Amino acid sequence: MSEAAQTLDGWYCLHDFRTVDWALWKTLSSEERQTAINEFLGLVEKWNHVQRDKNGSHALYTIVGQKADFMMMLLRPTLEELNAIENEFNKTTLAQYTIPVHSYVSIVELSNYLPEGEDPYQNPQILARLYPELPKAKHVCFYPMDKRRNGEDNWYMLPMEDRRRMMRSHGMIGRQYAGKVKQVITGSVGFDDYEWGVTLFADEALQFKKLVYEMRFDEVSARFGEFGAFYVGNLLEEDKVYSFLHV
Amino acid sequence: MSEAAQTLDGWYCLHDFRTVDWALWKTLSSEERQTAINEFLGLVEKWNHVQRDKNGSHALYTIVGQKADFMMMLLRPTLEELNAIENEFNKTTLAQYTIPVHSYVSIVELSNYLPEGEDPYQNPQILARLYPELPKAKHVCFYPMDKRRNGEDNWYMLPMEDRRRMMRSHGMIGRQYAGKVKQVITGSVGFDDYEWGVTLFADEALQFKKLVYEMRFDEVSARFGEFGAFYVGNLLEEDKVYSFLHV
Amino acid sequence: MSEAAQTLDGWYCLHDFRTVDWALWKTLSSEERQTAINEFLGLVEKWNHVQRDKNGSHALYTIVGQKADFMMMLLRPTLEELNAIENEFNKTTLAQYTIPVHSYVSIVELSNYLPEGEDPYQNPQILARLYPELPKAKHVCFYPMDKRRNGEDNWYMLPMEDRRRMMRSHGMIGRQYAGKVKQVITGSVGFDDYEWGVTLFADEALQFKKLVYEMRFDEVSARFGEFGAFYVGNLLEEDKVYSFLHV
Amino acid sequence: MSEAAQTLDGWYCLHDFRTVDWALWKTLSSEERQTAINEFLGLVEKWNHVQRDKNGSHALYTIVGQKADFMMMLLRPTLEELNAIENEFNKTTLAQYTIPVHSYVSIVELSNYLPEGEDPYQNPQILARLYPELPKAKHVCFYPMDKRRNGEDNWYMLPMEDRRRMMRSHGMIGRQYAGKVKQVITGSVGFDDYEWGVTLFADEALQFKKLVYEMRFDEVSARFGEFGAFYVGNLLEEDKVYSFLHV
Amino acid sequence: MSEAAQTLDGWYCLHDFRTVDWALWKTLSSEERQTAINEFLGLVEKWNHVQRDKNGSHALYTIVGQKADFMMMLLRPTLEELNAIENEFNKTTLAQYTIPVHSYVSIVELSNYLPEGEDPYQNPQILARLYPELPKAKHVCFYPMDKRRNGEDNWYMLPMEDRRRMMRSHGMIGRQYAGKVKQVITGSVGFDDYEWGVTLFADEALQFKKLVYEMRFDEVSARFGEFGAFYVGNLLEEDKVYSFLHV
Repeated sequence: MSEAAQTLDGWYCLHDFRTVDWALWKTLSSEERQTAINEFLGLVEKWNHVQRDKNGSHALYTIVGQKADFMMMLLRPTLEELNAIENEFNKTTLAQYTIPVHSYVSIVELSNYLPEGEDPYQNPQILARLYPELPKAKHVCFYPMDKRRNGEDNWYMLPMEDRRRMMRSHGMIGRQYAGKVKQVITGSVGFDDYEWGVTLFADEALQFKKLVYEMRFDEVSARFGEFGAFYVGNLLEEDKVYSFLHV
Repeated sequence: MSEAAQTLDGWYCLHDFRTVDWALWKTLSSEERQTAINEFLGLVEKWNHVQRDKNGSHALYTIVGQKADFMMMLLRPTLEELNAIENEFNKTTLAQYTIPVHSYVSIVELSNYLPEGEDPYQNPQILARLYPELPKAKHVCFYPMDKRRNGEDNWYMLPMEDRRRMMRSHGMIGRQYAGKVKQVITGSVGFDDYEWGVTLFADEALQFKKLVYEMRFDEVSARFGEFGAFYVGNLLEEDKVYSFLHV
Repeated sequence: MSEAAQTLDGWYCLHDFRTVDWALWKTLSSEERQTAINEFLGLVEKWNHVQRDKNGSHALYTIVGQKADFMMMLLRPTLEELNAIENEFNKTTLAQYTIPVHSYVSIVELSNYLPEGEDPYQNPQILARLYPELPKAKHVCFYPMDKRRNGEDNWYMLPMEDRRRMMRSHGMIGRQYAGKVKQVITGSVGFDDYEWGVTLFADEALQFKKLVYEMRFDEVSARFGEFGAFYVGNLLEEDKVYSFLHV
Repeated sequence: MSEAAQTLDGWYCLHDFRTVDWALWKTLSSEERQTAINEFLGLVEKWNHVQRDKNGSHALYTIVGQKADFMMMLLRPTLEELNAIENEFNKTTLAQYTIPVHSYVSIVELSNYLPEGEDPYQNPQILARLYPELPKAKHVCFYPMDKRRNGEDNWYMLPMEDRRRMMRSHGMIGRQYAGKVKQVITGSVGFDDYEWGVTLFADEALQFKKLVYEMRFDEVSARFGEFGAFYVGNLLEEDKVYSFLHV
Repeated sequence: MSEAAQTLDGWYCLHDFRTVDWALWKTLSSEERQTAINEFLGLVEKWNHVQRDKNGSHALYTIVGQKADFMMMLLRPTLEELNAIENEFNKTTLAQYTIPVHSYVSIVELSNYLPEGEDPYQNPQILARLYPELPKAKHVCFYPMDKRRNGEDNWYMLPMEDRRRMMRSHGMIGRQYAGKVKQVITGSVGFDDYEWGVTLFADEALQFKKLVYEMRFDEVSARFGEFGAFYVGNLLEEDKVYSFLHV
C-alpha cells in the first residue's frame, strides 16, 4: 500500500453551468424579464454580502460555445449552504428560463506534497488559498481531471517520493505563470466524477492554453493526467447581466 | 478457474434519483402543491411503518449539483416490493413534477473474505449489517464500482488468498473511519451495470473524501477499482420537505 | 486464421423495453385507459395463440429501477414478424403513452463447442432450446455481452481447442444452476451492438447474482467477457397489467 | 511511414435513419396522412428516375428494434446532391412526423490491395461496384468500422504486404457468401466518425450473422476490427409504405 | 520533463453547428420567415464588414447528414467578440428555430517545429496563416484531435527531436495537397475537449478522404492521433440561404 498524500481542505465549491432558453425567455414581456433579472441580481447581492463577510465567495462568467451560456461558481463552508443556494436559484423566475447543463461539486484543496515540519494551518498564505476571494479576472477556464491508474502508468501505486518529485516539478510550471494565471484547485474524490476540478483565472485567455499545454509535457500530466471537458468564458459583471439577457 | 468469494446477502436495495421540474411545479396552485407533498409524505409514512416493523428501511437525501435534486434509498426483502414502491411513487402527483435521472438496483452484501469455521448467519452483528436500519446521518455519498479485469490487473484471475489479503487491508482503512463513516455495500452483479454500489453516511461530508482518497492508494482500489458517477447530498428530514419544495 | 465455432440458430428474438409516461397517461379518462389496456391485452392474446401453435413465444416483465417500466421479449421465425409486431404495438394507444428506452435484436443460438459426430438438429432437446416456450419464472435478467479482443486477451485469436475447453468449464457452472436458473442465449453478431444477449429466468432473483458472480471468476468471463447494461425485473402476468397501469 | 493503400472511389453515400413519431402522426387526419405519404412517394419516384438514368441509386428498409423505424440509403455523384435530397426530405410533411436518429456519410470504395499492373477503372466489374444499383434484397445490415490502432495491434503501422495478405484472406470469406450476401463497402475517412461503412444485403437475414461471425475469427477483424452500432432491417417496398404508416 | 513545442497563435475561433427545427420553422408565415432570414443575413453582412476590415473572418457551410444542418465558423481577435456574436445570434428569430448541436472553441495556431533562428512573427506568410481570410471553397471538413498518451504511445513523453521529425514528415503529406486542400489548424488545449481542431477546405470533397487517409499511415497519426467526430459540408453562399431555408 502506497502512502496517501495529506490534503488541506477549505471551502466547499459548486460550479453550476446553465444555458438560457432564449425562445422561452422571449415569450416574457420586457417588464417580466426585468423583474426576473432584478430577482437574480438580488440573489447575487446576497452572495456579495457573504463574500464581504468572508463567509464564502462566488464568480459569474459567460461561457463561450454551446456548452453553456453562463457559469456560477460558489464557495461556501458547508454542502448544506451550497445546496440551499441551488435550491433558491432553482426557484427564481430566471431559472425557469435556463437549462441546467453541467455542475461540479468539490472542495478547495491544497495537496500537501510539501516538506514536513510546518503546520500549514498556521500559514496565512495557505489559509488565504483555502478560503479565497475569487478574482474578477477577465477570463475563466474550468476542467476536471483524474490521475491515471492504467498498467505501468498508475499514479496511486507510485512511492510517495516519486509523486512528491513530480508534483514539485509540476508546481514550478504553475509558478512561472504567477501574476498571469490564478489557479484554484478543488478536490472532488467522493464528491463528483473526477478526482479534481481546476479553475483558472486570467486576464489574457491565451495564458490558459500556454499553461495547460506546457504542463501536458510534464510527466505528471503526460503519463498520469486524464482530463474531462473544458469550459472557457468571460467575466460577467453584474452591470452586464442586463445586456447579456436583453432581447 | 479462480475460486469465487462467497457473499452474504440481505435486503434488496433501490437508489432512486429525481430532479424536480421546478417550472412545471410552479404551475400548480399552492393548495395543489400542498396536497402533492402530503401525498408523498403519506408514502414516506408507510415506509416508516415498514421500518419500525423491521421489514425494510429507507433514506431521503437532497443531492448537491445538477445530477439530481433528491434521492430515495429503499431496502426491502424482495424485488417485487421495490418495484411496487416505484410503481406507487410514479403514480403520485409529485412524481409527475419530477424527472427520473438515475437509479441503481442491488442487494445488501457482505463479502465473505473471512476466516472459515464460523457460521456468519448466526452472528447478530452480521445480521444487523445485512438488514440495517439506514442512519439519519447529515450526509450521504453514493457511487457504483467494478473490480477491474484488464491485462495484468485482473481481479478475477487472482488467487483467493491474494484477494483475501488485499480485502483485509482495504477493510482496515474502513475500520479507521468507524464512528465517522458508515458504509453500506450492496452487490449488483446481475442486477445493474456495475458490480457493487457503495453508500456512505457521515455527519461530516469531508470524511467521504478522506476515506475514498485514502482507499485509492490501497492496492485493491489503485490497481483494481473502477468507479462510476459519485452523488453527494444532505439529509432531507420529513419536516424539511415542505421548505425544500416551497416555491 | 482461427476456426469459427459453428452455431445452431433458432427463432429470432426482440427485447423491447418501455417506460410509461405516467403524467401523460393520467390525462386519459379512466375509460380511455381501460380501452387502451384492453387493446394491448388483445395483442398479447394474439401472441398467446402464436405460442400455443408453437410458432413463437413471448414474455412480459416489469423492470426494477428507472431503466424501463416493462419489457416485452418476443421470439418469432423471421425478422419480418418481429418488425410487424413492433409496428403493430407502436400503433396502439398504449404505445403513445410509453417511451421506447431500449431494444435488442438477436436470434436464439446454441454454440456448438460440442463433440463432433452428432447431428444436433436431430436432437429433440436441442430443438426445444432453439424454439423454446419462454418460462413464466418470477424474475428475469437480461444483459448483452461480447468476447474481448484486447492485446493478450483476444478470444477470436485463440485456438479452437482452448475456446472449447473454456466454454465447457463455463457450461458446467451453468449446469449447477439447473432447476434454479433457465438461460436463453441469443446471438446478435450482425444484428445488434453486442455479440450475444443473455436472458436468465429464475423464481429467486438472488440466483442471477450468484450465477453471474460465480461465472465472473471463470477464465472465459474473467479474461474475455465484456458486459453491457443489466436489466432485472418481475413477471408481469396478464391479469396484473390492470393494476400495474391503474392510476 | 507505412504505405497507404490506394482506394477506388465511386458514388457518395448517405444512410439516413428515422423514427416515426407515431403519437404525432396519429393527430393528422387520414387524408392528411395520405397526402404526406403521397408526397414522400413522389420523392421516391424522383429517386427512381435518377436510378433508371444511372445517376445514383437508393434503398428503403424498415429497421428492427427501437434504433430506428426506417432507413433511406442514397447514392449520388456529389455531396451537394445528397445534401439537396436531405434538405428536400426535411421539408416534406412526413419528415415533420419523424425524428432523425442516425446518419452516415461515406463514399463507395474498393480498396486496392490487388495485384498491380491492371487499370481498375477499365474493369467493368469494378465500375459496376463503384456505381452500383442497390439490390432489392429482403434484408439489410449496416455497421461502421475502424481498423484498430492500439499498441501491438496497429493496422496503420503494418507493412503493406501484411495488410495485403490479411485483406486477401478476409476477401476470401466474403467470396464464400457470393450469391447469399452482397456487400457495399463505403469509405468515410474524413467524412464521418468511423473509417468505413459496411452495408450488407441478403434474402436470408441469418447470413449476416454467419458472415460477420466467421470474419470475426479472421486476423484482420479479430486483431484490427473495431465495430460501431449494427442496424438490421427488412425491405420496405414502395407499395408497403401505406401499410407501414397506416394508423 | 519533455520540452513543449512553442506555438504561434492568431485569431480565436468558434465553430457553431446548428440544426433547423423544420416543423417549427414551417409554423411561421412566409413573411415571418423572410424577415428572420433578412435579420440573419444582416448579421452576416456585419461579419462581412469585419472581414473586409481584416478584423476577423467567417465561413458558412451546410452539413451533410443529421449531425447538423449548417455550420458557422468565426474568427475574431478575442473570446469576448466570439461570445458577443453567439449572444447576438442566439437572440435572432432564426436562432429560435434552430437547435444548437455542437460547437468548438479554439485559436488559430501554427506549431513551431521549425528550424530556429527565424522570428516567425516577421514572416508575412505566417501572419497570413494566423489571421486568415477563410476561403470560399465548395466543401469543408472539420474534426478535433488529440495526441495520444497511452503506454508506449505517449506523444508528450517523446523527445523534441522525435516529435519534430514526425511533424516534418506529416507536414510533407499536407504539402502534397497544396492547391487542393487548405488546412486551418486551431489549438484548443485549455479551451475545448480536444487539443486541436482541424478545418479543411477543398473544391473536391474526395480530397478530404485522400488527405486524411494518407496521413493515417503516417506514424504521427497512426501511433499518436486520436480523432473526434467528423463534419463534412457544402458552401452555403449568402444568396443560397433563401432556398436552403425555403419551405
